[in-house]
Amino acid sequence: MSLQTQPAAPLPSQAGGRLTLPIQTGMDEEVRRLIARLGADAVRNSDGTELPSIVSELATKVYSTYFVGRGDNVWADAHPQEATRIFLMSDRVAATADGPVSIDLLASWFADQVRPDTGCDVTRWWQAHDRTTGQELPATAWSIEADGRTVTVHEALAGHVYTVSFLAIQTWDPTQMYNYLTNGWDEDPTRVKEKPFDVRHEATWSHVRAHLSAWLTEHPEVDVVRFTTFFYHFTLVYGADATERFVDWFGYSASVSVPALEAFEEEYGYRLTAEDFVDAGYYNSPFRVPTRAFRDWINFQQRFVCSRVRELTDAVHAQGKEAMMFLGDNWIGTEPYGEHFATTGLDAVVGSVGSGATCRMIADIPHVRYTEGRFLPYFFPDVFHPGGDPVTEANRSWLEARRAIVRSPLDRIGYGGYLSLAVEHPDFIDRVEQIVAEFRAIHERSAGLRPLTPGFKVAVVNSWGRLRSWMTHMVAHALWYRQTYTYLGVLEALSGLPVDVEFLSFDDVRAGLAPEVKVLICAGAEGTAFSGGEQWADSELVAQVSSFVAAGGGLIGVGAPSAHPAHGVTFQLADVLGVDREIGWGLSTRRRPPEAEAHFITRDLTGGLDDGEGTPDIVVTSPATRVLDAAHGQVRLAVHELGRGRAVYATGLPYSAQNSRLLHRAIFWAAGCQEEFSAWAALDPRVEVAAYPDGHTTLVINNSLDPVTTTVPTPQGPRTVRLEEGGHQWLTAASQ
Amino acid sequence: MSLQTQPAAPLPSQAGGRLTLPIQTGMDEEVRRLIARLGADAVRNSDGTELPSIVSELATKVYSTYFVGRGDNVWADAHPQEATRIFLMSDRVAATADGPVSIDLLASWFADQVRPDTGCDVTRWWQAHDRTTGQELPATAWSIEADGRTVTVHEALAGHVYTVSFLAIQTWDPTQMYNYLTNGWDEDPTRVKEKPFDVRHEATWSHVRAHLSAWLTEHPEVDVVRFTTFFYHFTLVYGADATERFVDWFGYSASVSVPALEAFEEEYGYRLTAEDFVDAGYYNSPFRVPTRAFRDWINFQQRFVCSRVRELTDAVHAQGKEAMMFLGDNWIGTEPYGEHFATTGLDAVVGSVGSGATCRMIADIPHVRYTEGRFLPYFFPDVFHPGGDPVTEANRSWLEARRAIVRSPLDRIGYGGYLSLAVEHPDFIDRVEQIVAEFRAIHERSAGLRPLTPGFKVAVVNSWGRLRSWMTHMVAHALWYRQTYTYLGVLEALSGLPVDVEFLSFDDVRAGLAPEVKVLICAGAEGTAFSGGEQWADSELVAQVSSFVAAGGGLIGVGAPSAHPAHGVTFQLADVLGVDREIGWGLSTRRRPPEAEAHFITRDLTGGLDDGEGTPDIVVTSPATRVLDAAHGQVRLAVHELGRGRAVYATGLPYSAQNSRLLHRAIFWAAGCQEEFSAWAALDPRVEVAAYPDGHTTLVINNSLDPVTTTVPTPQGPRTVRLEEGGHQWLTAASQ
Repeated sequence: MSLQTQPAAPLPSQAGGRLTLPIQTGMDEEVRRLIARLGADAVRNSDGTELPSIVSELATKVYSTYFVGRGDNVWADAHPQEATRIFLMSDRVAATADGPVSIDLLASWFADQVRPDTGCDVTRWWQAHDRTTGQELPATAWSIEADGRTVTVHEALAGHVYTVSFLAIQTWDPTQMYNYLTNGWDEDPTRVKEKPFDVRHEATWSHVRAHLSAWLTEHPEVDVVRFTTFFYHFTLVYGADATERFVDWFGYSASVSVPALEAFEEEYGYRLTAEDFVDAGYYNSPFRVPTRAFRDWINFQQRFVCSRVRELTDAVHAQGKEAMMFLGDNWIGTEPYGEHFATTGLDAVVGSVGSGATCRMIADIPHVRYTEGRFLPYFFPDVFHPGGDPVTEANRSWLEARRAIVRSPLDRIGYGGYLSLAVEHPDFIDRVEQIVAEFRAIHERSAGLRPLTPGFKVAVVNSWGRLRSWMTHMVAHALWYRQTYTYLGVLEALSGLPVDVEFLSFDDVRAGLAPEVKVLICAGAEGTAFSGGEQWADSELVAQVSSFVAAGGGLIGVGAPSAHPAHGVTFQLADVLGVDREIGWGLSTRRRPPEAEAHFITRDLTGGLDDGEGTPDIVVTSPATRVLDAAHGQVRLAVHELGRGRAVYATGLPYSAQNSRLLHRAIFWAAGCQEEFSAWAALDPRVEVAAYPDGHTTLVINNSLDPVTTTVPTPQGPRTVRLEEGGHQWLTAASQ
Repeated sequence: MSLQTQPAAPLPSQAGGRLTLPIQTGMDEEVRRLIARLGADAVRNSDGTELPSIVSELATKVYSTYFVGRGDNVWADAHPQEATRIFLMSDRVAATADGPVSIDLLASWFADQVRPDTGCDVTRWWQAHDRTTGQELPATAWSIEADGRTVTVHEALAGHVYTVSFLAIQTWDPTQMYNYLTNGWDEDPTRVKEKPFDVRHEATWSHVRAHLSAWLTEHPEVDVVRFTTFFYHFTLVYGADATERFVDWFGYSASVSVPALEAFEEEYGYRLTAEDFVDAGYYNSPFRVPTRAFRDWINFQQRFVCSRVRELTDAVHAQGKEAMMFLGDNWIGTEPYGEHFATTGLDAVVGSVGSGATCRMIADIPHVRYTEGRFLPYFFPDVFHPGGDPVTEANRSWLEARRAIVRSPLDRIGYGGYLSLAVEHPDFIDRVEQIVAEFRAIHERSAGLRPLTPGFKVAVVNSWGRLRSWMTHMVAHALWYRQTYTYLGVLEALSGLPVDVEFLSFDDVRAGLAPEVKVLICAGAEGTAFSGGEQWADSELVAQVSSFVAAGGGLIGVGAPSAHPAHGVTFQLADVLGVDREIGWGLSTRRRPPEAEAHFITRDLTGGLDDGEGTPDIVVTSPATRVLDAAHGQVRLAVHELGRGRAVYATGLPYSAQNSRLLHRAIFWAAGCQEEFSAWAALDPRVEVAAYPDGHTTLVINNSLDPVTTTVPTPQGPRTVRLEEGGHQWLTAASQ
């Protein structure tokens, strides 16, 4: 047996498959040529494009976008009471003197999108609050003016702040509104503002089923119904200036209706109010530690949505077609990691790949036959204009996603948008051809098996657990926020590391950890659902995590893990972590000034830790704490041992090759497996290694845009490899 | 009438007075010469020096240091039960498995300084806590080992953390310990470790009085008894490594004794426990919002201490001498802004001047005939060594203090330490001569009147109010902390601004603001007593401040004013300030990106706001908010109007000429008096102006080390002045 000295030749792309291309009318020859050249085995239309009539002749599967809850204004106009609803809160209005105060409900909301639902029982579904005291006002204390959008609080108190939480009718589907306003469709007389309707109402539900049934019959050319998506849009509301005012990709505020709320009350035995959704203006953001009521509502709606989705997928299957869901837009209730998702009967999920973490979010979805990642860039004029540079974006996107794909292979990749724009950039088409070939090779050479991981699991712990697998710290899909990238880097690193990752809720931890879990990770900003906030008021949880470590487990904290000031510490796990956050109450205690020492974890770190936004005022609390990185007198990285276990703390870990390596090392050290680390990592942190179970195949990827020469482990011993910018090599041990 | 074109000539220093010099034995001639040259009218000894025998011949007052509660180890050894006590907490010890856990009480404390008091009723005065649950353990759950310093918790639970709070005997006075260890007195056979004793015990109290009485008789040469200080030292405890472990200049932990605690219970009707002092390890730091129990204890001990001080001052007065208190060391119970200070009968207070704020802390003390500031540098070898540069430190100190002295004249200045060291630096003696002349001129030219201020008051609001006037954000006297300078700058600026300042507690605000209060200032880090923390859970307080502003008042918030996340906002005054701190729960709400605009407040600001450590994630919450400074997409300075009032918010205001000017402008804008501002300020922020009530005297000071030419207001109109580095000018309108 000897190792090949050259990387294996790429497989011929004729093998084809695993690729979905967006096509459109008016470029039939080009479509045929590209399908053949790229080996696409599926085609699709996009929002704004139509499938050409040639689709039936193409030797590919045909996807067609399908909208369930919008796109039929005739129906919507005929059934205004069955429009979807949303709970909204007015602006906070301060009373400057005792006496009546007027509140314009739509002062900060877009009147073209939402309209106060004055037709419902407002004394039941609306609420006015004194936000200074936190108390609800009695219904007699306020009234709605004739304009249907102004509320008067009759006897406001000087210096108090008032809000009105109200049920509103949604008069415009948010995604269509976004496309409409972004693309200037006002000018296009064929465009209408699509009004969403709610399948909770039986008439609408019958209509939706009948419509699908007819549509399926009318579209024999379609193989895959690409639902975009189902019934309830995530929360996306514009402001009075017709720009985005509120966006929560996980928001359930627009999944409400009087019948649903009444059904909830009947089933759960308690009443939900506007405040349960409005949440003082935070609208149950996933950064909030979820309330019981909100978790019940999620469960309630997931059951409802999944059961109705099942009826649609059954209809699709009855016509011999597949049902695919786009992960996004109206996806509320169909969370793929939710308890009820398995019941939907969906064949596939497709989603946009914005990073390694979002790639894993799609690739790891259970209970479907396949997953597809829609890659960036989207073929839209923002990137595909003369002088535009789609290749650079494609490279960036591919390098981010490839790490994740290597660990958990997506089944398919695809693109979206206007093919006519893409073909104007031949260098981009060339690059897509290479990417697709590289993607297929991962599937073919791995023989469908995932690369090896060590024999333990790493669990990310937060308030959401499995439900929000690979979805932590996200506001809107993959969007960058200054307040989140410092923690999101942990997820992004994990998405491509050779470790098995699972997501646990604090309730899961309370219920007991499986023996294969060797390392817990808790990362996030203080007070959020991700660091745990008030969850840590539960001393049993604290004791459980502490004893897990004391008994030999590993804990990695990033940012403000377990922050909840009480009992003499800010971090409830301070005694495990060996550090705490000094919030001013303990300045009288002289702390050991941090002096960094060398350690296994920081062996590949040069130039000090990049901790992103960082976490200020971290102090050493134990003589056993070892500081690994410090700056300006402040701890940034430290380790501490408790009993037989180990803890690692970092002030922040934005994603970078160095930080990913640091996390990789931290995991191994925390798990007590640092001796085995060299079998899993290239010497250079920019390079990652995947060893396959066959014992003789190793994939080496260069995540950077520099050429890198480094030494990598293989089952046959260390090998030196030279990788092009963003390149890869397959190393195999050839038989003698 | 015409203005003089030259500054008034300095008055001859022969006028003399207002100066205290430290003297010592062995340099009689030099002492005589210096007293004459500098015009000193008082002399003193210092810790480590003796008054020479010539003192009686000198035409000066003679101060003598006097220690009440230490310095008599014969007494202390004969009355070990009357030693002072302190409540301490052990380290936090985590149980790594179920079973017994040993806690070494002195693991982190200095055994030469403190010793567990195992002789008291430990079931009453000691406590063991499970700090994971926050629960106290029953006394049967733990026991003290034979070594007197180890406690065993019998049935600890895995993952739980335990502490023991215990009464300890103090076996070494902290200040003497500091001097002893700092100066290496181990080598000096005449030095003993002085044991403190507690006047709460009647035998010790009788002894203390008798000792003073005898001493007064034996020291006819002494005119002023300089008490250093009285009975209870602020909390200063060393660690096992004989270095500082805990310091709180305001700490009452060492003011405890069993008789005092029993007397408290009898009077207040409830029992205090170790936890009431230990406070989970925070020891009631002034950064903690004070508990009811702690405030009661402060009041209780202040009454006791002040009443006993009165007996000592009566004895001093009976001998025709004056009683002076050094503000520091054993000053607990004699806080000069406390309710009972007036009853002490003290003639004077002397304290160390470390800044403008600490200068005002001394100068503003009520109920005494005079105040004295001990200036820096102290004549100690750390500065006064060959090659040392005491002049630079003297200049820095003088420029910091002078601003404050101009606004609220100290009556006297003095120095401390070894005169023999100072005379080795003739340039320093020259500089002292100038400083003293400048100081005396302020008194002489002002005719004893303070400079003018506008007709309204600025109130600094925090949990402590008047009791801690000019003492906010302080850990140990005037020491710099990274976590405090950002807020302390507000106080330092105020100390020299031409405005009337008072300190109000939140209770004072609740009780109603006086009509002359036009601007409230709330500055501090989140959760501290200074920003208010949980105090803001009181909606009446919120409403009161809000209506104060709405009715025309001004509010200035710095850092995290009113931070206490609830009811949809982090800052409970967010609706007044027009900004809030985004702590992650509201990321879904799109905020207006901050765009700074020009404003009256920032007119003298160049290069953007220096906000020190700053406060991250400040967002605009109102369309009416005007952003005045922003960096990296984050608000740093903003203004907002509510009703008829105005609010200003800054992320931080460390002291600088620019920030002091900014605060000065903010005060005038918030008070609605911005039209009058130019009458109060020089064009150049480095220069400040004091106008005297006589209508024709104006003092102009240059706070910087650069020469400055600028225009200043005078009652006779604007004047251009040229000031030397750190210089000053008296401008007078001469009669025609």
